[in-house]
Amino acid sequence: MIWNEKAECMSREDMAELQLKKLQDVVKRAYENIPYYHKKYKELNIHPNDIQSLEDIEKLPFTTKDDLREGYPFGMFAVPSREIIEVHSSSGTTGKPVVSGYTRKDIDCWSELVARGLTMMGIDENDIIQNTHGYGLFTGGFGVHYGSHKIGSIVIPISTGQSRRQIEIMKDFGTTVVIFTPSYGMYLAELAKEEGFDSKDINLKAIGFGAEMWTEEMRQEIQTRFGAPAYNIYGLTELMGPGIAVECSAQDGLHISEDYVYPEIIDPKTGKTLEENKNGELVLTNLEREGMPLIRFRTKDITSINRQSCQCGRNTARMERITGRTDDMIKVKGVAVFPSQIEKALLKVNNIEPHYQIIVTRPHLMDEIEVKVEASEDLFSDEVKEMINIKKKIEDYIENEIGLRVKVTLVEPKSIPRSEGKAIRVIDKRNLH
Amino acid sequence: MIWNEKAECMSREDMAELQLKKLQDVVKRAYENIPYYHKKYKELNIHPNDIQSLEDIEKLPFTTKDDLREGYPFGMFAVPSREIIEVHSSSGTTGKPVVSGYTRKDIDCWSELVARGLTMMGIDENDIIQNTHGYGLFTGGFGVHYGSHKIGSIVIPISTGQSRRQIEIMKDFGTTVVIFTPSYGMYLAELAKEEGFDSKDINLKAIGFGAEMWTEEMRQEIQTRFGAPAYNIYGLTELMGPGIAVECSAQDGLHISEDYVYPEIIDPKTGKTLEENKNGELVLTNLEREGMPLIRFRTKDITSINRQSCQCGRNTARMERITGRTDDMIKVKGVAVFPSQIEKALLKVNNIEPHYQIIVTRPHLMDEIEVKVEASEDLFSDEVKEMINIKKKIEDYIENEIGLRVKVTLVEPKSIPRSEGKAIRVIDKRNLH
Ligand SMILES: [Zn+2]
Ligand SMILES: [Zn+2]
Repeated sequence: MIWNEKAECMSREDMAELQLKKLQDVVKRAYENIPYYHKKYKELNIHPNDIQSLEDIEKLPFTTKDDLREGYPFGMFAVPSREIIEVHSSSGTTGKPVVSGYTRKDIDCWSELVARGLTMMGIDENDIIQNTHGYGLFTGGFGVHYGSHKIGSIVIPISTGQSRRQIEIMKDFGTTVVIFTPSYGMYLAELAKEEGFDSKDINLKAIGFGAEMWTEEMRQEIQTRFGAPAYNIYGLTELMGPGIAVECSAQDGLHISEDYVYPEIIDPKTGKTLEENKNGELVLTNLEREGMPLIRFRTKDITSINRQSCQCGRNTARMERITGRTDDMIKVKGVAVFPSQIEKALLKVNNIEPHYQIIVTRPHLMDEIEVKVEASEDLFSDEVKEMINIKKKIEDYIENEIGLRVKVTLVEPKSIPRSEGKAIRVIDKRNLH
Repeated sequence: MIWNEKAECMSREDMAELQLKKLQDVVKRAYENIPYYHKKYKELNIHPNDIQSLEDIEKLPFTTKDDLREGYPFGMFAVPSREIIEVHSSSGTTGKPVVSGYTRKDIDCWSELVARGLTMMGIDENDIIQNTHGYGLFTGGFGVHYGSHKIGSIVIPISTGQSRRQIEIMKDFGTTVVIFTPSYGMYLAELAKEEGFDSKDINLKAIGFGAEMWTEEMRQEIQTRFGAPAYNIYGLTELMGPGIAVECSAQDGLHISEDYVYPEIIDPKTGKTLEENKNGELVLTNLEREGMPLIRFRTKDITSINRQSCQCGRNTARMERITGRTDDMIKVKGVAVFPSQIEKALLKVNNIEPHYQIIVTRPHLMDEIEVKVEASEDLFSDEVKEMINIKKKIEDYIENEIGLRVKVTLVEPKSIPRSEGKAIRVIDKRNLH
């Protein structure tokens, strides 16, 4: 089923025409109502009337997270605050947090985005969605909550934590869909195993993955453990929240709701727009948003875009799974390394658990990477020789993936800290020297 | 302003007529669709047609939390689960939790209840509500969230925790309304003081109190510390969630949305209905609810009901602040003691902080109560004689309130554990012997 056939199956030409109209409108609204954009466009001598084609968007400057921080708290709002009905905020570990504001129509658009996505995952009003994402200033929990309301499925707003109870509820309530971050999913799978719980005890139809990077191999692992297909959900608090792009049953890229959000891929160094299928930084523009429309927001997420129509029947552009972030790339001996590459290598090896940490050090003015990986219970009780073999195998696979030799340490099962939110994968000790 | 003048200002006669019609309907729906009610009414030889007047409700048996537990998880639903869009659950520290199910109409009714309540507190679409109640299976956070959406104010869904950030956000976002439990409010007040924060730094217009018992003296204390009036919000997950009854500007009882919920007061021992203004256990019946209508649910909360019209112009019945629960009553030397009585006594004394714990022991086959109370910083550095005076004063006040002499211990400022949710007031060690 397709939630909104008109929007999702529109021809590329009609979509481009619609996008141009909406782009012209949003640039005008931002220019007229948001002092930040007004000032910036004036300075650069840009006027909304300069947008005569979709390509003209390249004339506009980027918006960064730092720009949003400067507007803290409500400086980026395009409407009087009495029209705002909800605010969210990103965590802000450094500096002021970023605030995101929503009008009633924005909340409805957000619900619509997620409704489309849940439908892509095969979910309808008969399903029971266990939403383990946290509710609060973070948008994670609310996106799925609103989307579930829209399609009429049952939402269990359990949020993160109470992990044993999560498993109990999956069984007792007959949960058919579970939403988690990949690392929390792995943690739940492990707990479930401990409690002698079998994937046959539950009747999962789909898993929604969000808020974290993962590899295809991680997906396979989760799918096997829970006995259900896992779909990727993408989004950012700044632009709206999770649901901006979601995977369909083809599991071949995430359909972007292009009538709401205009995607570009740029070279993160030069800022130049890249052509289709090239990897680069995703830049997004809100096309419909009233409360806080962002224009050319740099997401720092690395992906590519494909505009071919999909076997599911939808014509909206698809983005690849995020393979890295411009800011979580680790530069080691001059080589760009992404944690996802390490993970990809690890998941090719049997007898290890998909729990790992990457430790970067600079002991003698030279960068070194150590990868700590958990051995499986079986392996750990096995002979030393076998462990040495596995260790070498992992080092080979990683070298193959990133072009660098790293040190691999196999550690005891369950010795790497589990996270209930985003996993901490990289520990960079170089700054401490 | 009154949110729904028709419902809230209706004459008592019209209300009674409306309630009877709705009661007949809900009893019929429960009888036909909920096996629990069908079986029970059959056994007792009761038929929906027996309800010919509001008083006939007394023919119907009570529903208890244990009855709901037996129906775990979805046994009390009156509609097919495809019509349910959200579930909540009470914490279930003992036995199975209780599950509460909502159709789309139920969520809308809940929003309406809270919208009426927020309006009673003087809140409108210009306000910014900082909602520190937790979101999750617990209904606390969602009630205010939905109500705020309904009236169009801004909701900051910050939930509990991150307490220093709560204070920062109050200032930065210009919060005009804060929702908390009284004990979390006291904790925030203390933190704010530590950070040199003045109530003049914020511009609070109202405080919403929920999910915990408190005394009039505690209200005065909170109002002084935050420089804004504090209003009581009452509700139960089983019946819907917070918002079933809310205080108006008169601060003289909580208006019950009687077109949605029918209230009775009974003698908790005999089950007999008590007359107006008599103290007893509150029993509630859902009049509109589709998903899980409960009939004569015993709340265990102790209060009284007053049907006089209010100076605010509303005609709906008002319940008193909850003064105790049938199950948190402590029986000591045969005397029924409620924590609220102790609190009332404490708040009469200067130089102590409103943080306390009640410890019940049975050292020599005789019950003893010790009350630990925090001294203020000033008092603590004062002379011993003054401390002895205060201690004696507190003992006198408590004796005056409950009729028993208890041992009072003044402890160091900040030595009683603060809670971020419901405070643990009573430690009963007698079961351990
Ligand atoms: Zn597709
Ligand atoms: Zn009133």
